[in-house]
Amino acid sequence: MAGSTLGTIWKVTTWGESHGKGVGVVVDGCPAGLPLSEADIQAYLNRRKPGQSKFTTKRQESDEVEILSGVFEGKTTGAPISMAVWNKDQRSKDYGNIMDVYRPGHADYTFDTKYGFRDYRGGGRSSGRETTARVAAGAVAAVFLKQLGIHVTAYTKAVGPYEIDPERFNIEERDENRLYMPDLKTAHMAEKYLEEMMEKTDSVGGVVECIIDGVPAGIGDPVFEKYDAALAKAIMSMGAVKGFEIGNGFLASRSTGSINNDRFIKGKDGRIEKATNHAGGILGGMSDGSQVVFRAAFKPTPSIALPQKTVTRQGEETEIEIKGRHDPIIVPRAVVVVEAMAALTTADLLLVNMSSRMDRIQSFYGQNQ
Amino acid sequence: MAGSTLGTIWKVTTWGESHGKGVGVVVDGCPAGLPLSEADIQAYLNRRKPGQSKFTTKRQESDEVEILSGVFEGKTTGAPISMAVWNKDQRSKDYGNIMDVYRPGHADYTFDTKYGFRDYRGGGRSSGRETTARVAAGAVAAVFLKQLGIHVTAYTKAVGPYEIDPERFNIEERDENRLYMPDLKTAHMAEKYLEEMMEKTDSVGGVVECIIDGVPAGIGDPVFEKYDAALAKAIMSMGAVKGFEIGNGFLASRSTGSINNDRFIKGKDGRIEKATNHAGGILGGMSDGSQVVFRAAFKPTPSIALPQKTVTRQGEETEIEIKGRHDPIIVPRAVVVVEAMAALTTADLLLVNMSSRMDRIQSFYGQNQ
Amino acid sequence: MAGSTLGTIWKVTTWGESHGKGVGVVVDGCPAGLPLSEADIQAYLNRRKPGQSKFTTKRQESDEVEILSGVFEGKTTGAPISMAVWNKDQRSKDYGNIMDVYRPGHADYTFDTKYGFRDYRGGGRSSGRETTARVAAGAVAAVFLKQLGIHVTAYTKAVGPYEIDPERFNIEERDENRLYMPDLKTAHMAEKYLEEMMEKTDSVGGVVECIIDGVPAGIGDPVFEKYDAALAKAIMSMGAVKGFEIGNGFLASRSTGSINNDRFIKGKDGRIEKATNHAGGILGGMSDGSQVVFRAAFKPTPSIALPQKTVTRQGEETEIEIKGRHDPIIVPRAVVVVEAMAALTTADLLLVNMSSRMDRIQSFYGQNQ
Amino acid sequence: MAGSTLGTIWKVTTWGESHGKGVGVVVDGCPAGLPLSEADIQAYLNRRKPGQSKFTTKRQESDEVEILSGVFEGKTTGAPISMAVWNKDQRSKDYGNIMDVYRPGHADYTFDTKYGFRDYRGGGRSSGRETTARVAAGAVAAVFLKQLGIHVTAYTKAVGPYEIDPERFNIEERDENRLYMPDLKTAHMAEKYLEEMMEKTDSVGGVVECIIDGVPAGIGDPVFEKYDAALAKAIMSMGAVKGFEIGNGFLASRSTGSINNDRFIKGKDGRIEKATNHAGGILGGMSDGSQVVFRAAFKPTPSIALPQKTVTRQGEETEIEIKGRHDPIIVPRAVVVVEAMAALTTADLLLVNMSSRMDRIQSFYGQNQ
Repeated sequence: MAGSTLGTIWKVTTWGESHGKGVGVVVDGCPAGLPLSEADIQAYLNRRKPGQSKFTTKRQESDEVEILSGVFEGKTTGAPISMAVWNKDQRSKDYGNIMDVYRPGHADYTFDTKYGFRDYRGGGRSSGRETTARVAAGAVAAVFLKQLGIHVTAYTKAVGPYEIDPERFNIEERDENRLYMPDLKTAHMAEKYLEEMMEKTDSVGGVVECIIDGVPAGIGDPVFEKYDAALAKAIMSMGAVKGFEIGNGFLASRSTGSINNDRFIKGKDGRIEKATNHAGGILGGMSDGSQVVFRAAFKPTPSIALPQKTVTRQGEETEIEIKGRHDPIIVPRAVVVVEAMAALTTADLLLVNMSSRMDRIQSFYGQNQ
Repeated sequence: MAGSTLGTIWKVTTWGESHGKGVGVVVDGCPAGLPLSEADIQAYLNRRKPGQSKFTTKRQESDEVEILSGVFEGKTTGAPISMAVWNKDQRSKDYGNIMDVYRPGHADYTFDTKYGFRDYRGGGRSSGRETTARVAAGAVAAVFLKQLGIHVTAYTKAVGPYEIDPERFNIEERDENRLYMPDLKTAHMAEKYLEEMMEKTDSVGGVVECIIDGVPAGIGDPVFEKYDAALAKAIMSMGAVKGFEIGNGFLASRSTGSINNDRFIKGKDGRIEKATNHAGGILGGMSDGSQVVFRAAFKPTPSIALPQKTVTRQGEETEIEIKGRHDPIIVPRAVVVVEAMAALTTADLLLVNMSSRMDRIQSFYGQNQ
Repeated sequence: MAGSTLGTIWKVTTWGESHGKGVGVVVDGCPAGLPLSEADIQAYLNRRKPGQSKFTTKRQESDEVEILSGVFEGKTTGAPISMAVWNKDQRSKDYGNIMDVYRPGHADYTFDTKYGFRDYRGGGRSSGRETTARVAAGAVAAVFLKQLGIHVTAYTKAVGPYEIDPERFNIEERDENRLYMPDLKTAHMAEKYLEEMMEKTDSVGGVVECIIDGVPAGIGDPVFEKYDAALAKAIMSMGAVKGFEIGNGFLASRSTGSINNDRFIKGKDGRIEKATNHAGGILGGMSDGSQVVFRAAFKPTPSIALPQKTVTRQGEETEIEIKGRHDPIIVPRAVVVVEAMAALTTADLLLVNMSSRMDRIQSFYGQNQ
Repeated sequence: MAGSTLGTIWKVTTWGESHGKGVGVVVDGCPAGLPLSEADIQAYLNRRKPGQSKFTTKRQESDEVEILSGVFEGKTTGAPISMAVWNKDQRSKDYGNIMDVYRPGHADYTFDTKYGFRDYRGGGRSSGRETTARVAAGAVAAVFLKQLGIHVTAYTKAVGPYEIDPERFNIEERDENRLYMPDLKTAHMAEKYLEEMMEKTDSVGGVVECIIDGVPAGIGDPVFEKYDAALAKAIMSMGAVKGFEIGNGFLASRSTGSINNDRFIKGKDGRIEKATNHAGGILGGMSDGSQVVFRAAFKPTPSIALPQKTVTRQGEETEIEIKGRHDPIIVPRAVVVVEAMAALTTADLLLVNMSSRMDRIQSFYGQNQ
């Protein structure tokens, strides 16, 4: 399983299974001297914690992070920051029935095929629990970005067919509803819809939007390491994400050049700005100084209690009813994971970008130019 | 400019500018013993060659590939395959007027900000010409994949608002129209629409869809190196792409679990199959043995002859009319680039996947198990 | 601190400080289906455990490994294997006196310069304790290699000026003396020498030799990723190593071609062999099927109780006597670390090598050739 | 052949064979704004050019470099710098006789085993000609380092048993003899020795020493990416190198702590310095501000005209006399390659190091601290 490490300079490596001893992450490449505490990270973890509302699983995970290394006297030392969240409420029996049956929409079949067998307790590495580790690492990145005046904010854009009304957009309202929608009115409609679907023991999908404020122009590299390409990979690496858009995204494909092009203007303070932001803050793969805006499409939770036809490991047809505690929608808990992945990607590219210009390198190393 | 190299085992590194001596690519990690000739690669390059129809730029680039290393007696040797396409028709004067003015929708401003100055002749590394190198590398990957029974096929799914009708889908028709649409009727409507937009000296966007046939189950790694995440990055690293979807993509976000889940069935020959393919051939980041299907959204060509407001390098407002020869739509020429990027990604992951199971490694190295 | 991760496919990431909560490692890329237990790893850790003889530090570290993830029902699952060794006997006071004084031969000064401050308790990431994590990871690699018939064996070649006599070489004797020398007679002389140096509160250096048996021909890649180059990096990344040799090493620089070249012969079973092995089992960066043999030179332990002149953090001259418990020689405990680093390097290159030939890839993926 | 790319931020990828169209290299990650011309690079290539003295091969390679991309108006643009040296004097027939016979000391056998066949003309990727590409890339790195006040100087330390006398060391004399020894007296003795060996149609080895001046303290990362570990890999990746030492190297293994430790002192200008430099300028894997000093051991040229016993591809015993034009010693031409590899390694680590401290990152991005 090559592939548990992400990043070039700011590198994160996650480990752990939902029903093992815990999940964790090693953050390597975080600069020395960053003030950091467990509380900083806990604040992010609490946002993805289950058991918070009727729309999220009833598992009572405490999700308390423990910093194992890399922080000394309240500051990062430059050494790898190892963090763990120990598992407590594991109820293995709940998952016994999926040992030999392939759940539709899950990775049971692909795991078995690739590895010859699998840890069938709770999805193993495909479990949403793996994202705990991502959030812990992303929290460190977010703390780092704040020191540079960069802020990452994600929210629920749509729940099934219910999409927030741009006119009513109010980020303050995001944390006032359990769906993390920055539009209370739409949130209430979406909640009703969700309740209906829950009664049918069905599940729904949705869209998360994310805004990154304060990114200096020039972040990202022009060929394979474009900022938006790196974001796309980071976001698509989340289990249930099926689509990614930067700026106007798919809408741009139906537009024309005269409309879609953002013209440059002279801003208030004389700085170059864009009159619009159809590009989502990225031109040629590099940040252009305006807000970075992207969206991720999430599929409906595949675990549903409705009976579903499927096959056994031996290929015999059967039916499955997935018991246990599952979120009827992934989106609200995924909001903070999207922030985490965006923060990790941005932190890494900011560090890589420091080596792009001779004059700045000379200045950094104290040489006359 | 860290970031001109892509891949873990099958690594490609591109170089070159549209108005320099040429563009090229080094393919490192291609296995030894693959039959390969310049003709194999030329066939792919010809598909992106400009000057083929009224919808593509009139530049007469010959785009002839030269293999510089890595092939001996008609077969790859395992050494890096270096390839170049030398520039011939360069007309630098056409671009003189953009030296000091930032073209809307282009990377002029971000390049200047990041690097302090730029090669203003034709967009430098942001030029579509850089994709020539990608196609050459992708052609090698496609030849490799064919030996393993894997075939990558892309086509134009939509031109502006004109989308192919699934009922009329006929891949044979793709090469019978200049838009590479596998539905001649829609192609003709789209051509008319394009002509109208060209008269207005405007440009349009579109969508490319890509199908990968024959991928064995288990390709891709479950965490950060998911197959779909790697595809997303590769595809989003193309200049004008603003969105990426796997399987049902954004549509899945408005669906329900009971509908979106693909149930497993016992196939004709007793093998496990899926009754539907909303997942686009990937479960938990790994291929599931069915067709891999994804889409890319392209923005309209930013270079348009219509006068546009913008600013100079010094931040003064001005107006620009972009002369020169530009495609009114990027999509038809991008079809083969999408195939190339998909082939490169798939080839790399296939090689990485070989090390996933102990039993297969023992068998590879001839050890009893 | 970019740089806590090593490897391309078989990737290890270490974390932890000598006086923090513990040290650990994440092994990503180990194939699924490898039988593995904590006992397998403990056997390796016990070999570097301090407090075993009068020549090693008196710290009573229990060094018990805990597997946190990646193993299920006695076999690796393909998921990252996270392991930790928790610190118990930490006595921070011992190190208080080095907070403001730069110890000669240590990394105190370079850490302060690079990071602005440091975790002064016991050397932080430069502590020999970090190698615990390497040994845990190397143990997994060694278990993997055994399944392929590959065995890594290191031993003490020299202690200060006392070098084993090749005529008396007997690997059985290695574990019968506390210096891990495969020649008891030399071991006894070396022990006497060590005791003398300890009385003088001084320290000594030495040489470790390592043999890798059973490596199939062709491992390693011919340019930057030569097998011996990768071994050199892995071994030189150990704290006190100042030199690396493959085969005849520096001796070869004083030889002639007619003597140094190993001629090929037809072996007993008709297979191609080499009559001698001056090359150390590697030709052109690739294994040639004979034993891989390399050596590492270790400097004397820098921590000595003798008074030494040095400077304070503020640059004022002072004198230091390093108290605490330190090995008078690093070599005996480093033997197993050398094995670990060699095993990790070999495992990674074996996996990378699987993709070198088209015919083998086709056979792997079940395609006719 | 994964493994033709080296570096994390400053990445080089080489390609080409000795008897193909040429050799080349792509340098990706060189910052924008560095003044660079073909003449800068040619000056380095001329130093490894063959045909310069009776001790080097008579092949008349012109070795003229051509910059293909990445430089505009005399400065690097930040885009990949692609360079090629086209082959001219190839005489393929000279190598016909080695098609089916394995030359002792060469990689013929390992290539055949790994790849199934090989480009038998002149050694393919194992040819010394591949180092042309390394020198071209290293020249760019050296130009970059000079801008930061860092200078890399290598020279021949020993030819067979003839080693320069430290008392007579005079770097000015290096370029006054064909062996590049900074001690004319020893050089003359070594030349005589070489002539004797040439009469016997035998070959000899030697040692290259390299000094890097002006490296700021703190370069290199403390765990796997130690500066000396990275140097070791880069240097050991040269074809004929069999050993690497930093500072006192193997000599340190026979020393004691009280002698080997370099004590810190208050230097003339109040800065912290070391009284001696047994460490070779590196402590804990990081540069300590003093000269970086390392050595590489080269084996004798394996190509000798003396008849040698060996086997054919089919495993039958035979005898070979290697005709053609070969250097009786590799060392003099390798001196500039060692400089190149040291420059590449240092440039890459300098760029990586920029992200090690929060305060410096904030200052770089213009944030108050």
